[in-house]
Amino acid sequence: MKTDFFSGIEPAQYKGTDSTDPLSFRYYDKDRKVMGRRMEDHLRFSAAYWHSFTWPGSDPFGGETLNRPWMHGDDAMELARQKADVAFDMFELLGVPYFAFHDIDVAPEGGSLREFNANLNAIADIFESKMQSSGVKLLWGTANMFSHRRFMSGAATNPDPDVFAYACGQVKAAMDVTKRLGGENYVCWGGREGYETLLNTNLKQELDQLGRFLSMLVEYKHKIGFDGPILIEPKPKEPTKHQYDYDVATVYGFLSRYGLLDDVKVNIEQNHAILAGHSFDHEVRLAYALGIFGSIDINRGDDLLGWDTDQFAMNVPEIALLMHEILKNGGFQTGGLNFDAKIRRQSIDPQDLLIAHVASMDACARGLLAAEKMLEDKALEGPLADRYAGWSEPEPQAILAGERSLEEVAMKGLETSPQPRSGRQEYLEGVLNRYV
Amino acid sequence: MKTDFFSGIEPAQYKGTDSTDPLSFRYYDKDRKVMGRRMEDHLRFSAAYWHSFTWPGSDPFGGETLNRPWMHGDDAMELARQKADVAFDMFELLGVPYFAFHDIDVAPEGGSLREFNANLNAIADIFESKMQSSGVKLLWGTANMFSHRRFMSGAATNPDPDVFAYACGQVKAAMDVTKRLGGENYVCWGGREGYETLLNTNLKQELDQLGRFLSMLVEYKHKIGFDGPILIEPKPKEPTKHQYDYDVATVYGFLSRYGLLDDVKVNIEQNHAILAGHSFDHEVRLAYALGIFGSIDINRGDDLLGWDTDQFAMNVPEIALLMHEILKNGGFQTGGLNFDAKIRRQSIDPQDLLIAHVASMDACARGLLAAEKMLEDKALEGPLADRYAGWSEPEPQAILAGERSLEEVAMKGLETSPQPRSGRQEYLEGVLNRYV
Amino acid sequence: MKTDFFSGIEPAQYKGTDSTDPLSFRYYDKDRKVMGRRMEDHLRFSAAYWHSFTWPGSDPFGGETLNRPWMHGDDAMELARQKADVAFDMFELLGVPYFAFHDIDVAPEGGSLREFNANLNAIADIFESKMQSSGVKLLWGTANMFSHRRFMSGAATNPDPDVFAYACGQVKAAMDVTKRLGGENYVCWGGREGYETLLNTNLKQELDQLGRFLSMLVEYKHKIGFDGPILIEPKPKEPTKHQYDYDVATVYGFLSRYGLLDDVKVNIEQNHAILAGHSFDHEVRLAYALGIFGSIDINRGDDLLGWDTDQFAMNVPEIALLMHEILKNGGFQTGGLNFDAKIRRQSIDPQDLLIAHVASMDACARGLLAAEKMLEDKALEGPLADRYAGWSEPEPQAILAGERSLEEVAMKGLETSPQPRSGRQEYLEGVLNRYV
Amino acid sequence: MKTDFFSGIEPAQYKGTDSTDPLSFRYYDKDRKVMGRRMEDHLRFSAAYWHSFTWPGSDPFGGETLNRPWMHGDDAMELARQKADVAFDMFELLGVPYFAFHDIDVAPEGGSLREFNANLNAIADIFESKMQSSGVKLLWGTANMFSHRRFMSGAATNPDPDVFAYACGQVKAAMDVTKRLGGENYVCWGGREGYETLLNTNLKQELDQLGRFLSMLVEYKHKIGFDGPILIEPKPKEPTKHQYDYDVATVYGFLSRYGLLDDVKVNIEQNHAILAGHSFDHEVRLAYALGIFGSIDINRGDDLLGWDTDQFAMNVPEIALLMHEILKNGGFQTGGLNFDAKIRRQSIDPQDLLIAHVASMDACARGLLAAEKMLEDKALEGPLADRYAGWSEPEPQAILAGERSLEEVAMKGLETSPQPRSGRQEYLEGVLNRYV
Repeated sequence: MKTDFFSGIEPAQYKGTDSTDPLSFRYYDKDRKVMGRRMEDHLRFSAAYWHSFTWPGSDPFGGETLNRPWMHGDDAMELARQKADVAFDMFELLGVPYFAFHDIDVAPEGGSLREFNANLNAIADIFESKMQSSGVKLLWGTANMFSHRRFMSGAATNPDPDVFAYACGQVKAAMDVTKRLGGENYVCWGGREGYETLLNTNLKQELDQLGRFLSMLVEYKHKIGFDGPILIEPKPKEPTKHQYDYDVATVYGFLSRYGLLDDVKVNIEQNHAILAGHSFDHEVRLAYALGIFGSIDINRGDDLLGWDTDQFAMNVPEIALLMHEILKNGGFQTGGLNFDAKIRRQSIDPQDLLIAHVASMDACARGLLAAEKMLEDKALEGPLADRYAGWSEPEPQAILAGERSLEEVAMKGLETSPQPRSGRQEYLEGVLNRYV
Repeated sequence: MKTDFFSGIEPAQYKGTDSTDPLSFRYYDKDRKVMGRRMEDHLRFSAAYWHSFTWPGSDPFGGETLNRPWMHGDDAMELARQKADVAFDMFELLGVPYFAFHDIDVAPEGGSLREFNANLNAIADIFESKMQSSGVKLLWGTANMFSHRRFMSGAATNPDPDVFAYACGQVKAAMDVTKRLGGENYVCWGGREGYETLLNTNLKQELDQLGRFLSMLVEYKHKIGFDGPILIEPKPKEPTKHQYDYDVATVYGFLSRYGLLDDVKVNIEQNHAILAGHSFDHEVRLAYALGIFGSIDINRGDDLLGWDTDQFAMNVPEIALLMHEILKNGGFQTGGLNFDAKIRRQSIDPQDLLIAHVASMDACARGLLAAEKMLEDKALEGPLADRYAGWSEPEPQAILAGERSLEEVAMKGLETSPQPRSGRQEYLEGVLNRYV
Repeated sequence: MKTDFFSGIEPAQYKGTDSTDPLSFRYYDKDRKVMGRRMEDHLRFSAAYWHSFTWPGSDPFGGETLNRPWMHGDDAMELARQKADVAFDMFELLGVPYFAFHDIDVAPEGGSLREFNANLNAIADIFESKMQSSGVKLLWGTANMFSHRRFMSGAATNPDPDVFAYACGQVKAAMDVTKRLGGENYVCWGGREGYETLLNTNLKQELDQLGRFLSMLVEYKHKIGFDGPILIEPKPKEPTKHQYDYDVATVYGFLSRYGLLDDVKVNIEQNHAILAGHSFDHEVRLAYALGIFGSIDINRGDDLLGWDTDQFAMNVPEIALLMHEILKNGGFQTGGLNFDAKIRRQSIDPQDLLIAHVASMDACARGLLAAEKMLEDKALEGPLADRYAGWSEPEPQAILAGERSLEEVAMKGLETSPQPRSGRQEYLEGVLNRYV
Repeated sequence: MKTDFFSGIEPAQYKGTDSTDPLSFRYYDKDRKVMGRRMEDHLRFSAAYWHSFTWPGSDPFGGETLNRPWMHGDDAMELARQKADVAFDMFELLGVPYFAFHDIDVAPEGGSLREFNANLNAIADIFESKMQSSGVKLLWGTANMFSHRRFMSGAATNPDPDVFAYACGQVKAAMDVTKRLGGENYVCWGGREGYETLLNTNLKQELDQLGRFLSMLVEYKHKIGFDGPILIEPKPKEPTKHQYDYDVATVYGFLSRYGLLDDVKVNIEQNHAILAGHSFDHEVRLAYALGIFGSIDINRGDDLLGWDTDQFAMNVPEIALLMHEILKNGGFQTGGLNFDAKIRRQSIDPQDLLIAHVASMDACARGLLAAEKMLEDKALEGPLADRYAGWSEPEPQAILAGERSLEEVAMKGLETSPQPRSGRQEYLEGVLNRYV
């Protein structure tokens, strides 16, 4: 280890289900094969720079609690390097194969965009070296275009075209760095692409600005040969009252409107899903149905709170359904499970950071194993196929294929007297409980 | 009047703002000109058959309270005729130019779809005559394909193709009747087009079924020469856990996916908007921005309750913003303000039904007058134009027109140092308060 | 079995965790000892008459789906007897030791309160005999004073004193029958004790009416020697906009205000808890802290829906925390786990009713076993005791005992420089995951 | 004016309803008599130090936007003095008769509690002088015991008794200063008196700690002869998952449990009310019914967002109902309307701060005038008295007085056949609309 932040702590090991060591894995055994693929290759865990290394523990009613040494000092670049050392220490202690970052997580903004870009590239040099030595890869990069005052009214959707131009400058640099570091995706989160009040908002104009911005980014991606997809991360609100990337369905409509369906997909977060009124499973399943599934920000919100708590995912039944969906669709392609999760602000010990990741990685591994077993047993897929079996018949297939008119089918309807069949929800809930 | 249900009550008249008579209008003066059009022609009020005449006052924990005479008797067709008499009495007492109905609101289902269709047409004969004598027109018709047991797992999205066929038979008849009565729109509300649990749901299959169903309906509409648009009514949940027509943005994506943008628009309801986490104003404005605005179900939900309360709209500031949006876009085309609202189950006196409509019509008229004044003064539109003025310049216009690459704009971004400008939200809220 | 409703189905048996039979138990082994008490005696399961036998499958947008034979016929008392036969068949197939009912669930209301009371007692005669032969006991009885039209504006809180008197007549009969059948508790749920709008509500008057009503009931309980507690069931809303028994804390204040803390406790329901913004665990723990814990209505709501879905409880982690709390406090006294849960309206097969109960009983048993193990290991209690250890010292104890003034403690405060300690939330979440 | 922060702006004047000057009052005419009392004396406006002068414009996803000059500099006490100058400039420009503050709003914490207390008293010296010259009075003071890291696990409810002691030291100083400055109330907001997870929380222990803390404060208040009430400010959540002062009903139960009903009342905030699932009107009315009404934090939340937005109150209908309630109960005693409201973070111009207050003061004045008129006309009180008239009869009065047993009333109930009467909700909503 480069630093003594986690001093005395050994890399987390798989120790089996009897282990009570909170820094060991009970289920995550990275080389274990699941449906022919190593667990590590299925789960593709990624540690997130921002929550773990740049958030000081503040909330709207309180300040810093975590007191990280790399947050206090005069030489911003030196602090950034210290932070990078601790970050890679953590990646190695956890054994995660990926990490992800925003530009401002890793490098100081300095006094101008030029200086920021230079700082970012200087840190990228360090990352390159650390990535090579550690084997840790970049799941994705992104640009934070919502925290600074200049973005208070949005970045791409700002009423001021100069802010739009500034955002172009910033996003280009972040994309360049992501490509240089071999990032497998590029993510956009529209934290201020929305509004506080419709009284001062030209909704249509702002949507067009956002569509144009994304289109330009797609063109640039192709130009520089960045292979991975661009991912939009849906979120309905917070910080703004309304965000344009509300949920998966909204993003689909947006991409369709601006001709972006081939190049842009979604990065789905559990906490954002529930803020939009959807289950995590719904958002993932809908993204697959619409052909825009990309990646996952794995965390959990509090069902009784109305803001983004970004807690570590610990709910095995929910994760099992997530992994069931992903496995059923062939597993991740470029995406992975990125820990967009933060420890509670009272979890101030360095080891809390590790314990949280280990516990959540284990919950994900357990969910994966449950999903594998459910798929092997066709526990859910079997009853599902039975339920819709009628649609496999020739006449219903002809209807779906567009070969029947309303009148033709209506005539048939006059002759039917359909009898309801049980939806068997409780039976299926009981089945699920056998696996989780 | 044909019946004595409202006996002793005179038609509601405009009596000016000093009136304290709850059966008079204080603002709604139907011939008064607003931006060159009569108030009646702007507001295009429609009374809804179901809430006013078919709902017995029940809720999930209690039964009938309203005890309407036409709900108790052995001869279903005779009761349906009595109901029609009372309904048209009410339309005339209120002076509403339109009404709207579901098929099962007006005619008994009988023992088969054939019998139902016959009943429906028999009532339509009565309606034709009443509409001619009263001058009341049909804003829209629709088919209720969610209340009967056969639709418990959906109509178009049912796992059983026979139910789909039955639904085709029912919707065709409803469309035919709507056309015959000169309906200006045809509405679809997918009350069970959704799911209770994903455990038993093939999401993609169901979306495809729904897309096919709508497409067939569109083809049929063209075939029979029905001029008005088909309107989908977004609602996120209730009765089901999740409904496919979640909100305006979701419907847009759906219409885009299935190639229906030219023929299908939305009928927006306030209560559905807030259940989806949106303001009424948001949904209306978004529908205009996306080119799919159709009509309004005017009511209000309770912001603190999680179900559809369908209360009469009384909130003048909210209605003023609605009318501002509609006026700004040239006023209703085929749509109108349909009272998808029900009196509280404790409002058991016949006159409560009239008082509720009158009070809400008046709130709408007041909102219309406020909107007219705001537009005349450019109270909101002026500051809005100022805020986005920068985008009218040639270079930003070129960006929006797709004539600039990310790199070109990024270069410009390196030279800018944008200065934030106040969003002036409180100023605008104060301005709004001058008008409402 | 008396009826053939569940024909061909055998009583549910414990078959161990490998069983895939949905009508067998995998964890619920009623004679297994848990902390010295049989599982059956710990869990004290109760089947609820209303959801299972009186609800037709309707929801606000749809009618009957379940088509139970005892709901259709002319002789109301004969139907009530058939229903009782099926109910006791189910109790025996499930092996539940208790049941619970509202008066109107079991007997027809007839044309007057006198007739209703007579019907109720006639059914009670049947129950007495069935209870004796089956060994099934009565967990509690209650009066439904919210469904009938006369209660539309409340029962005890009605603006009309005649309704209050009627409610007295009805509740007295229900209490009498509950005593006669050896009911171990008497429950009050104030379904309409609240308001739809404050505009027509005298809040203080209604609270006083409710306080008086409860006081009279307590006096009567003592007079007739009913031993069990009266239980209030908190619920924040639905059917009304606001209900006076909002949550546990509100009920505590109410009982305190009207001097009822010795005789009235709470019956807590998961779905009501989350509608009030609380976790189930919170409500239970608070009730114990305030000394008013009584019993549980075991079910679950949908975190993303705003109404009472009353689904069968299947969430093992949540139930484990519930049982942990109950075991820690010595287990149920007069209370139990009453299935205030209904099958989904699409679960129309008779066996769905059994499968739902079996699956939920099993989830409860699994939660109980997890709780036992956590308590044995002091998995949660150990860290909790450590965290508050400072308060066991003499000086903090003196503060809590009221032996120190603000000034004295403030002086001490001037000398301290308290150092925060980690709250260890993620560690504890990981610990919990080891048990569930 | 002492500073040039608001340079060029004149004190806000009443200019009548035709005024379009956003820095003038259209309704607030402070000397106008309303029910025999000057508007200023009715509304008792108070400006809040924290939102207006200490909040930098940050939110969970973004930093400072407001860039106030007094937030940047090395000499903390000098900055505090500058801030005080600007604050009193604002108080005078607005013409508010009161202000309110937290200790850390006005003085730097320094390196120890002793130093903080000294700083606080030094600023209090300045306040004394400014209050004398300006005539602005102190509505209340309070201690911020939630922002600093030491309070991350609560102040009075901290697991560490040293933090409790520290809190005693801090609250004593804040109470002393409040008394010295003639504060008319002392407020407690338990920002961290709650929990993040029950897994690490001893709920009963924490409630007892909080009860003891309040009791000590009450004793101290009496000892030093502080005349005003202590006010608890209910809030259900945020920053913590659950706060012990959830809502008015919860606070009532708490005060009752710990014997504090004589000395402690509530300070009710609109935004906190809706976060708890209640209307503002409900919380105010309940506080009056329970005898614990104290004061108001006047602001508004966003009904569609799940966090505390603290926007300026602009909703006239809601304010009219608030003022109706307060006027009906004789008007404020020690309480007032404190602007616990912040401008949006995009409202960065100094004048936005003034415009927001002026617009909200005007909305309050308009609500007051509407309430006066409604009371004069008995618009709401008349129908309310009619609705409950039955309870004024001797027999119902005897029931309420505890002079009748359940059996006696039940006998009467057997003879009644109560007939429901309309609740007239829509009528009353229409009436309200005549006034607002």
